[in-house]
This record gives sequence, structure tokens and C-alpha cells, in this order.
Amino acid sequence: MTTGSAPAAARRGAYRRLSVEERRAQLISAALALFARRAPEDVSLDDVAAAAGASRPLVYRYFPGGKQQLYEAALRSAAHELERCFVEERTGPLTQRMSHALDRYLAFVDSHDTGFSALLQGGSVAETSRTGAIVDEVRRAAADQILLHMQVAEPGPRLRMMVRTWISVVEAASLIWLDEQKQLPAAELRDWLLDQLVAMLTATAASDEQTARVARTALLLEEPGGPVGTLARGVMPVLADAARLLDPESE
Amino acid sequence: MTTGSAPAAARRGAYRRLSVEERRAQLISAALALFARRAPEDVSLDDVAAAAGASRPLVYRYFPGGKQQLYEAALRSAAHELERCFVEERTGPLTQRMSHALDRYLAFVDSHDTGFSALLQGGSVAETSRTGAIVDEVRRAAADQILLHMQVAEPGPRLRMMVRTWISVVEAASLIWLDEQKQLPAAELRDWLLDQLVAMLTATAASDEQTARVARTALLLEEPGGPVGTLARGVMPVLADAARLLDPESE
Repeated sequence: MTTGSAPAAARRGAYRRLSVEERRAQLISAALALFARRAPEDVSLDDVAAAAGASRPLVYRYFPGGKQQLYEAALRSAAHELERCFVEERTGPLTQRMSHALDRYLAFVDSHDTGFSALLQGGSVAETSRTGAIVDEVRRAAADQILLHMQVAEPGPRLRMMVRTWISVVEAASLIWLDEQKQLPAAELRDWLLDQLVAMLTATAASDEQTARVARTALLLEEPGGPVGTLARGVMPVLADAARLLDPESE
Repeated sequence: MTTGSAPAAARRGAYRRLSVEERRAQLISAALALFARRAPEDVSLDDVAAAAGASRPLVYRYFPGGKQQLYEAALRSAAHELERCFVEERTGPLTQRMSHALDRYLAFVDSHDTGFSALLQGGSVAETSRTGAIVDEVRRAAADQILLHMQVAEPGPRLRMMVRTWISVVEAASLIWLDEQKQLPAAELRDWLLDQLVAMLTATAASDEQTARVARTALLLEEPGGPVGTLARGVMPVLADAARLLDPESE
């Protein structure tokens, strides 16, 4: 927290020590910390004021729409943080890049567990078409980042569907993970999600030429000791008896 | 529509021709038809009354909670229909059974498109924790049916997560399909979803013994001309250059 630059403003009391933008950011940050760990209905404007060391009227001055406006501002701040999770250097194997992104994403889910569940499980009074649009924007931004890593400028319908539905796998798995009190170590959940990405990419490649090119290019950068090598070695014994399925005439 | 059994009641006018249960079912059916094709906010109680050939007071007599109660009753009726989609004879290859289930599911989505999107995309005023619970119950019932077909009485966390996240793939893909004006033929979407099921099952089998048993047992019943054979033949050329990944020492 930095102090305001105008000495006169500073003398006018504690509330004046922060610039308008700083105070706003501080209130949003206090709200987000509360909304992260409690359902929206269990957070009051007084809670936010207390957590921010501010008065209720001050909170209303910045957020005349009250709790709903504060909730949406906190959600927007969380959305930006989530979108940044999927920004990653474009070097190294695809699974390594996605592994870093998933680590950041799961750390976010871990530290915003209750709010994340309340928002995505639906039925909260704080949910509106605006909050739905914010969540959708995060999904879209994540999909765009993943497609960038796949070096695809114009994704066709199959590849887009694959990426968007994998994101729904990540979301659903995160909710199950929280629901089951995070019993699975986050690193194991991450590895399982990476396996699903590789599996869905490969299965979609079987019937879509663009996805096949993406999969072949991605495989070139993978290393035998990496996630794809481990997955391939794990899959082999399961498929051992299924070689007969490769010959369509073998009936 | 059958007429009431008591002749005296029948003479008292059109509203009396149906039994209480029949009239209730008729109102729910009229409501469901409207909620299927319009967002909840675009359906009024008068619309439902008109569609059912009933008066507004009669609708209120059956549904004193008004539109919200009627919406939830329609949703419950749709939920039962959806749950039945996944009930299938336990004979034949797993992909064949799931193919039948998906055909019924996609036909339902097709005929309830607007309501399906409004409900699952969130932000509708008609959404409450009760409607959320009804949707979750459908997901749970679908997962239970799929696990029955996998002959698993006590699914472990990995297998359960795989089945539940595949259901989220089905949901997300359905919403994308509707959002893109059903450009993809339903049969192609179904086949793609089956491919994802096989891929996710196989990838999960790589690191989970129970899932590996389910996958091996399921593969025994598959036929070379079936979905798994087609998928396997499509995947082979994509993976052709990746054989080097199988040897962890080959770097």
C-alpha cells in the first residue's frame, strides 16, 4: 500500500492516504479475498468495509451499486488473474507449457475455492447474465491462448470444439476436486488433465486434418521422459489385445 | 388426452374433463414446450394458459407459485426425460450402447434448444439453487448409468472423474453445437463424442488399474468395423512418428 503523493490530502485523514485508484483497488482486493472463501450470500458490505479498514459509506461512495457491484468488480479482477494463468512463453513442448498454465490455474482454484465453486456451480443470487459473460470471457481467453500455443491462426470447428471442451473438463475436474476436499494432490490432477488434453487432441486428429497437423507438430517437440511418453507407455498394455481392431476385415 | 371418469364432472365444463393429475401434466407439458423454445424471461403465465387452452386463474390454482413453480415443474419433467436417455440395454459393445444414448440425448437437445442453452449458460432469472440441483441430479443419473454399463459397482476417484468430466464434454459440446446453429450433423457430433469417451477412458486407464480393467473388458466387445476400430485406424498415422516416445532411454 503506497501513501498518496499530495501531503495536504494525507493530512485529511487515513481514507485520503490512498489515491482514488488505489483505494478502489484495495476495496476490490479485500472483497475478492472474502468472496474467494465464502459464498456471495455470506459476505456483507460491512465485512468488506471491515476487511479493508474502511467505513460502509466509503465503500458505497466507490460502489454505489453495493454488494452486487463489488462482487462483479471482484469477479472481473479474478477473471484477469485467471486469464493470465494461460499466458506462457511459446517455447518447449506443448505439454510442458500447458503444465505450467495448469499449475497456475490450480493454485488459483485452491486459493479461491469457495467462491470458485459458488460461481460455477450456479444458483447463487449474485449470478447474472453479466457474471456469466465474465466467466465466458475467461473461457474464451484460455481457448485463444491454447490455440496460440498450437500455432493455429484460424481454428476449424473440430479443433475449436476440442479445445473448448477440454476447458470444460478442466473446470468440471476442478469442481470435483474441491468437492472432494482436494484429496488428490494438485500435481496428480494436473498430470491427469494433461493426459486428457493429449487424448482428446489425438482422438480429434483421427477425423480432422487440421487437428492432425497440430498433433503431429506438437509430438515432434515431446520428449520420451515427458508426459506424452509416460502416457504412451501406460496406454500400450491396455491396448495390447485390441490390435485386432486395426484390421476392418478381420471380423 | 382422456376424459374424466365422472359424468357429472364432465358436464361442469371443459376444465373438468381432465383429472387433477391429467390437467397438471397437461399444463406442465404446455409449459415445457414453451420453455424449450424460449428463454424463461420470454414465457409468461398467460402464454402457458393459452397454449394449454386454460385460464390464468386455473394455472394459478395448480401452480400457486406462478411462473417460477411452473418452470421448475417443467424442468423436472425434462430432467426425467433426459435421465431416460441414458437407460439402455446392457448388451453389445459399450460404444454401441453409448451411441444409442447420445442419439436420444442429442435429439432432446435439438428439440429443447433455447431452454437448454438458457438453463446451462447461466444468468437466467429463473435459475436458483433448486434448478441447479435438478440439473446436477441429471448429471449424476447419467454418470450412474454409464458406470452400470462399465459394470463397475464401486468406481474409484479416477474413473468417476473421467465419467463426470466426459459428461461435461457432452454438455459443453451440445452448447457449442446449438450456438453454431447445429451446423455439424448430429451423427457426426455423436461420433466425435464417442471418440472422446474412448480417448478419455484409455488415457485414464494408463494411470488407474480399475479404469484399465474397464477399458480392457470394453475393448473385448468392440468390433473392427465399429467406432473404436475406426478411431484406432485414424489415430495410427498421427502417431506414426511418435514411436520414439515409447522408449524412455532414447533421448
